[in-house]
Amino acid sequence: MTAPLWTARVVTVFPAMFPGPLGESLAGRALERGTWSLEVLDLRDFADDPHRMVDDTPFGGGAGMVIRPDVVDRALQTARPAKGRMIYLSPRGRRLDQALVRDLAECPVVVLLCGRYEGVDQRVLDANAVEEVSLGDYVLSGGEPAALCLMDAVVRLLPGVTGNRDSLVEESFADGLLEYPHFTRPAAWTAHDGVERRVPDVLLSGHHAKVAEWRRSEAERLTRERRPDLWASRERSIKTLTEMRQTPNGN
Amino acid sequence: MTAPLWTARVVTVFPAMFPGPLGESLAGRALERGTWSLEVLDLRDFADDPHRMVDDTPFGGGAGMVIRPDVVDRALQTARPAKGRMIYLSPRGRRLDQALVRDLAECPVVVLLCGRYEGVDQRVLDANAVEEVSLGDYVLSGGEPAALCLMDAVVRLLPGVTGNRDSLVEESFADGLLEYPHFTRPAAWTAHDGVERRVPDVLLSGHHAKVAEWRRSEAERLTRERRPDLWASRERSIKTLTEMRQTPNGN
Repeated sequence: MTAPLWTARVVTVFPAMFPGPLGESLAGRALERGTWSLEVLDLRDFADDPHRMVDDTPFGGGAGMVIRPDVVDRALQTARPAKGRMIYLSPRGRRLDQALVRDLAECPVVVLLCGRYEGVDQRVLDANAVEEVSLGDYVLSGGEPAALCLMDAVVRLLPGVTGNRDSLVEESFADGLLEYPHFTRPAAWTAHDGVERRVPDVLLSGHHAKVAEWRRSEAERLTRERRPDLWASRERSIKTLTEMRQTPNGN
Repeated sequence: MTAPLWTARVVTVFPAMFPGPLGESLAGRALERGTWSLEVLDLRDFADDPHRMVDDTPFGGGAGMVIRPDVVDRALQTARPAKGRMIYLSPRGRRLDQALVRDLAECPVVVLLCGRYEGVDQRVLDANAVEEVSLGDYVLSGGEPAALCLMDAVVRLLPGVTGNRDSLVEESFADGLLEYPHFTRPAAWTAHDGVERRVPDVLLSGHHAKVAEWRRSEAERLTRERRPDLWASRERSIKTLTEMRQTPNGN
């Protein structure tokens, strides 16, 4: 068996949550084939008391428990890759996006530290220069479901995992746009409400250039309507590129 | 056993992915107690061919497969709640945030349609007025890991699930701010790098008002530094509230 293309090393108090959904489907088959590797470290193995406690009450008072810095520090020294990144999944982090997913897929080893309870002592994140990454502006019970999503997003980009590589070219965020809508058989379909809904004619035309044009314009329309923020940032980067091309020393 | 406070009804081609990580920890215990209920519908049960095929090639050509509208329509007629919402997890959707999570926790039944391959035929989403919701600006292999995160975020808000309800008051996004940093024992801690790191003095002072003030100012500083977008939208809503209070007919 050759070395895996990508390794995720997860530090968690719930090792039984892994591989979870990633044991199935494309990610699961790629895991079996050894395309990627999943190493799960039980944080409790790094506790130094007989009850394997990893948390304690927060200084300054308040609800909940905080994970101790010394326990996490020991786990991270074991998990730390020679070449790779260490990420703490937290709603306070930089928001995950497809550009970061692509970067992580190029990184041979990614350590994913999963918090529980109120979170992890801040000092151990500082001492290890751990990057904080957030799935989005919502709060989960812990980092584990977030780690599963992050790994899923990365693994599908690894060579050989997603059957048709073209699927990865035309998809949401590939070009700063949301993806166009999809249609399949039947071409004329009557839903439960008795209304017949037909596939847009252009998609049945067999005219490749017109299909491409329609899809492009639908992707642009959807992005403008649903995500004016994405649309604006795309317009800005196109403007910058155009200006760079027009500047004689721009290249 | 009393009726569950919340029901998630998942439509998927990978029923074995559920409950996955939600079978463990707080969500798992709440599931066992019947605080919430998880119903999983296998989309293949709604196929009408002997091979239980649910997908077909996309009209207009291109990579991958699209899930058929007739199969999804039958599944949604079975899943549709008398009172509740139907959500399709897709990167083209409205981005999930904590306000939407709170709304969904108040909704007795939430149907979660998980896409695979290139996605679901657009017509069945239109015919059923399905809401599209996205975890964030990245692409997953399917809706299942996203559904697990959404359910996790909702379940922890249900009464009796998170042990200490106060934990839910002081957390990220509760007040439009990221949460302040946490610290626990040891108060003076030497990391693997030999550097001693101490807990901020104010947290050891026992002075509750000063602790609260420090935490507030750290939450504000972190939000300004890490998430200028959140900070700006919070400033705008504070300004609007202040103006409403100053307008005689504002109340």
